[in-house]
Amino acid sequence: MKTRNTPVAPGGTIGIVGGGQLGRMLALAAARLGLKSCIYNDAPDAPAFQVTPHALVAPYDDLNMLSAFAEVCDAVTFEFENLPAHAIAHLAERVVVRPGAHALAMTQDRLTEKTFVEKLGLKTAPFFEVSSAEQAREAFSKLNGKGILKTRRFGYDGKGQAKVTSAEEAAKAFESFKGAPAILEGFVDFSYEASVVAARSADGGFAAYDPPENEHENHILRRSSVPSRLSAKQVENAKAIAKAIGDALDYAGVFAVELFVGKDGELLVNEIAPRVHNSGHWTIEACQCSQFEQHIRAVAGWPLGDPIRHADAVMENIIGAEADAWQSLAASGALHLYGKTESRPGRKMGHVTRLKPLTKP
Amino acid sequence: MKTRNTPVAPGGTIGIVGGGQLGRMLALAAARLGLKSCIYNDAPDAPAFQVTPHALVAPYDDLNMLSAFAEVCDAVTFEFENLPAHAIAHLAERVVVRPGAHALAMTQDRLTEKTFVEKLGLKTAPFFEVSSAEQAREAFSKLNGKGILKTRRFGYDGKGQAKVTSAEEAAKAFESFKGAPAILEGFVDFSYEASVVAARSADGGFAAYDPPENEHENHILRRSSVPSRLSAKQVENAKAIAKAIGDALDYAGVFAVELFVGKDGELLVNEIAPRVHNSGHWTIEACQCSQFEQHIRAVAGWPLGDPIRHADAVMENIIGAEADAWQSLAASGALHLYGKTESRPGRKMGHVTRLKPLTKP
Repeated sequence: MKTRNTPVAPGGTIGIVGGGQLGRMLALAAARLGLKSCIYNDAPDAPAFQVTPHALVAPYDDLNMLSAFAEVCDAVTFEFENLPAHAIAHLAERVVVRPGAHALAMTQDRLTEKTFVEKLGLKTAPFFEVSSAEQAREAFSKLNGKGILKTRRFGYDGKGQAKVTSAEEAAKAFESFKGAPAILEGFVDFSYEASVVAARSADGGFAAYDPPENEHENHILRRSSVPSRLSAKQVENAKAIAKAIGDALDYAGVFAVELFVGKDGELLVNEIAPRVHNSGHWTIEACQCSQFEQHIRAVAGWPLGDPIRHADAVMENIIGAEADAWQSLAASGALHLYGKTESRPGRKMGHVTRLKPLTKP
Repeated sequence: MKTRNTPVAPGGTIGIVGGGQLGRMLALAAARLGLKSCIYNDAPDAPAFQVTPHALVAPYDDLNMLSAFAEVCDAVTFEFENLPAHAIAHLAERVVVRPGAHALAMTQDRLTEKTFVEKLGLKTAPFFEVSSAEQAREAFSKLNGKGILKTRRFGYDGKGQAKVTSAEEAAKAFESFKGAPAILEGFVDFSYEASVVAARSADGGFAAYDPPENEHENHILRRSSVPSRLSAKQVENAKAIAKAIGDALDYAGVFAVELFVGKDGELLVNEIAPRVHNSGHWTIEACQCSQFEQHIRAVAGWPLGDPIRHADAVMENIIGAEADAWQSLAASGALHLYGKTESRPGRKMGHVTRLKPLTKP
């Protein structure tokens, strides 16, 4: 077992499970710090394979390959939260894994996550466990006529979600999930969405970025803007929510808390993402230490960077065929393309961040 | 021959000759734009090899390997200016090379460079060709008692330079260069040093960063700061000098013009570096488009990025054993380490940039 309490020295290797754009941007951030990256991905031709000579291709539950991966890495992290629990445990027996198994388990399941958030005294939409069509009907009757049925696990970008407006619709939606355990959430009539992207170090240090305001289209993030419309008091509350969650999970790394901003100004926790987050991409240009570098610092046991923002910023995702306009996008701002060869509808191909002089620090 | 006038599309490959820290940071910038990098270096274990799976190790004049390199690249550039002329010509017959052979030839030789600058009507220190000990003595007699003898080619970080205060010293210094052609420059009693880092696109577009003020120690850059002490008028002049040079060289890419700021406020051209420059590293954090991304954009035929600065910045080099303090350096700012395994005295191991809120835009 490698030492857990000393930082990974320059020249060491950070293992990143998942080779998509988040893994790619994490590897680029590690390189700035003089750290190597080894990417573990279950398919060849992953975007992150283009930015390091160290890569492994194997299924995410291949214990032999995970052992080999642990062997060459000084610390391991993830670009996504849905690794099988036994694979995480297998890694964690061999190498420092950040965030840890507990935080991942807590956020992999919407029911566990929401229950955890509620126990911390934080506000969420009303929610009910749904494991049968009958339970779906019953849960719906406790709502005010509108809800969203979601699978408990493996949902992202609106996948595994259905809006329902009657008990019958709720039952049918559950059946469409083919037996997958679900959760019925009450519909929240919010003003807008925001998020806090924050970092916690293994020794309890905490650093939160200015919370962006987020706009979605077809369940996919379209745009994140800083500053948001949140008041100074709301910003303070949002950061306190993130801190409470990070501390309770004994978290190490960057995480995001997605928030609904109610019409009364109240902040409701929607979801916790135990990883760098799309709504934090603007930190690459607008902050001295991006969310990606911040995560690598926390994973490697380095001091956290300063999250202060030096410019206003709007980040827009480039989705599917929108990437064909790369020349005009490059002329319009800081263009990031993820190295994906095929542009499918709904696929995140890149993003563009546009800075403006700081208005509200 | 590959097409010269169409930009390199995302997914294309930028060839970078030289795998040191500049090649490494160029490759990281290319990756942001969805471009691949192939690094050509004459020794294994180059810092840039850690950030791409595509690398070639061969002498810089190995024409077969250069052909193979040209074959896999859509455009080629350099991290240093001292490639043999016939190697550049060999590459340029096979692939787009930016900057071109002409600009490289012009700046590889201090005498050619200074003559070129003088012909543009720009000010430099007085200079004289020195090809013999006798010529050294004679040239010295034309100065006001102080000068610097420099080899015409292959000098950097103070190597191949000697301060001289008598005709005899000038002759001896020339002999210590073992027959290498030299140039004797008059000593300039300047207030401070500055530089302009600027980009020119193949179609004549121009973008200059705010000129930093530079401090050297033992002939090595210690610190670059923006804003500098230059007045708005001097900043304008500095950028105009860079534009005149870029246009006259029909340059494509990023280049730097090192300046002496005279006690009378006059700007004297010291040196032209046909590449990204150490005094421009602060652009990574303080600008939306860093000098590295800007260079890749110009090389790939993409639109130039916005060089506007969003924060004040001080960049300090980390030299030799100073890198041992990486933990406190990481706590103090944006730390960049170059992945060099051995720290020799005088070797640039990394740099740290510290941002502060913008004072003077």
